[in-house]
Amino acid sequence: MESFINRLLAKIRLRQSHVVVGLDPVHEFLPETIIKNRKDTLERIGSAIIDFNQAIIDAIYDLVPAIKPQIAFYERYGIEGIKAFVETVKYAKKKGLIIIEDAKRNDIGSTANAYSDGHIGKVSIKGEDVPVFDVDAITVTPFLGLDGILPFIKDSEKYSKGIFILVKTSNPSASDLQDLIIQTASGQVKLYEILAQFVNKWGSNLIDDSGYSAVGAVVGATYPNDAKILRKLMPHNYFLVPGFGAQGGGVNDIINSFNEDGYGALISASRSINYAFNDSTKYGDSDFDKAARETVKNMNNEINNALSIKGILNW
Amino acid sequence: MESFINRLLAKIRLRQSHVVVGLDPVHEFLPETIIKNRKDTLERIGSAIIDFNQAIIDAIYDLVPAIKPQIAFYERYGIEGIKAFVETVKYAKKKGLIIIEDAKRNDIGSTANAYSDGHIGKVSIKGEDVPVFDVDAITVTPFLGLDGILPFIKDSEKYSKGIFILVKTSNPSASDLQDLIIQTASGQVKLYEILAQFVNKWGSNLIDDSGYSAVGAVVGATYPNDAKILRKLMPHNYFLVPGFGAQGGGVNDIINSFNEDGYGALISASRSINYAFNDSTKYGDSDFDKAARETVKNMNNEINNALSIKGILNW
Repeated sequence: MESFINRLLAKIRLRQSHVVVGLDPVHEFLPETIIKNRKDTLERIGSAIIDFNQAIIDAIYDLVPAIKPQIAFYERYGIEGIKAFVETVKYAKKKGLIIIEDAKRNDIGSTANAYSDGHIGKVSIKGEDVPVFDVDAITVTPFLGLDGILPFIKDSEKYSKGIFILVKTSNPSASDLQDLIIQTASGQVKLYEILAQFVNKWGSNLIDDSGYSAVGAVVGATYPNDAKILRKLMPHNYFLVPGFGAQGGGVNDIINSFNEDGYGALISASRSINYAFNDSTKYGDSDFDKAARETVKNMNNEINNALSIKGILNW
Repeated sequence: MESFINRLLAKIRLRQSHVVVGLDPVHEFLPETIIKNRKDTLERIGSAIIDFNQAIIDAIYDLVPAIKPQIAFYERYGIEGIKAFVETVKYAKKKGLIIIEDAKRNDIGSTANAYSDGHIGKVSIKGEDVPVFDVDAITVTPFLGLDGILPFIKDSEKYSKGIFILVKTSNPSASDLQDLIIQTASGQVKLYEILAQFVNKWGSNLIDDSGYSAVGAVVGATYPNDAKILRKLMPHNYFLVPGFGAQGGGVNDIINSFNEDGYGALISASRSINYAFNDSTKYGDSDFDKAARETVKNMNNEINNALSIKGILNW
């Protein structure tokens, strides 16, 4: 099987899009046309989420390379939510989309191994290796250091998958830890810079002919100056860039996350696409999918335009 | 409802035990007497896990205050694994055990909110607040700073639950990040000391009449010198101490995690209890539950003995 990065790059070029559509369903915010009379049990909410996600996928699958379901919004509904997650992943795959699961998993080695088996790896059943959630890539948190990341890196290599390690997140409190000043032998740097060095090193054996590694980094759209520094520290690592749209990141904020080759950054938005009908003057509740499609089209145009102005649009 | 800490302390005193039993089922390691001919599908593995966990719970529920299922070992089996997790939680509750879910969840505020709703909080369905996984406490990772922790703290207050924030983990690579030297205005400290200050502060509004906060800390058994420092920095935070047994932590390593009142630390072991039959000369595969019970009894005795020698055994 082709490497994760090569599959991703092929889709990016096919769709001429650097956009990833987040799928973060919250039943209180679903359009009435979808949720209807299904507000009363977790099971019925789960079925509404499946319908909602499939409608969003139908509306955007020909415009973007990938989706990013955030597993928290499925765990919120227990088993019924996880079922909706599984159905969403299956449906999106059928539509040719790459699945980046936002799960931020992290644990000690033996436990990280169990997470990796379930999410991107396989479980050995009677001598046969069986995939479980089988997403294409997953986000992971580096708080426990290398041994908690290694199982994911090994499975990325073995099963042509990818990971995105949190380096600088998009939220207001990101600086509580990630901006701490670290004293090293060669001077003072910020924690996220140390992490960038780790990611650069940890991913160095998985760089393929594209020049990119299966080990990527999460770099929030809301800290554009940090992104500039991080882009230099991690030249071979693909960036997953959340925080565009609802969290306040704009097109000028994400441009620093691209490399000079016009690649290297996946720009992700969730709420601003999922609930675009709320802000639309053109589309109402029953046209939530059309509103989502228009928002994605606008994002594609805006980002491609910015790359073109910078002279690095590459298709 | 009584606070999490008061419920926990009551159980600790009732059982005269500071031990938490981890439930980390791996189908390849389950005793043959349990797994039998159920190795061929995720569904059948899931049902074997339920039987295994129930047998372990039956064997230890009268000896300890709490269990700590590690959700990774359930996610490994997809929906069937999550079903086994839910059944295990239900069964353990019926047996009067407190449930500490080891999930190390972490995300931006709005997403942390969804996690918290599902795991320790409630989801509003048609105006009614419905619990979902409904565990008593959950472990969380502080990598994203306060806004990713706050939803869990709020739900701890609202629903009498608890959290344990990772401060110093038990794994070999813990030092990659957690031991980094931080430059502050008042001098140099290690990252885990900064985190301890955060935990102390973040939990300060949830200290009840016991003197302990619903916001606890994870402090690995494998770094006893760090535990001594951390105990002083977090006098009001209960410690969840993993790494006893299979990871190499012994009774002399965990004693520093207790306060002078003889409380303040929950000592957790998983593999050394779950798979005690492998190391037992007395009990074989078919007596895995008896082997687990004996290991837990020995752990209780060993820890209580050490507290007694130190003069802080308090019952």
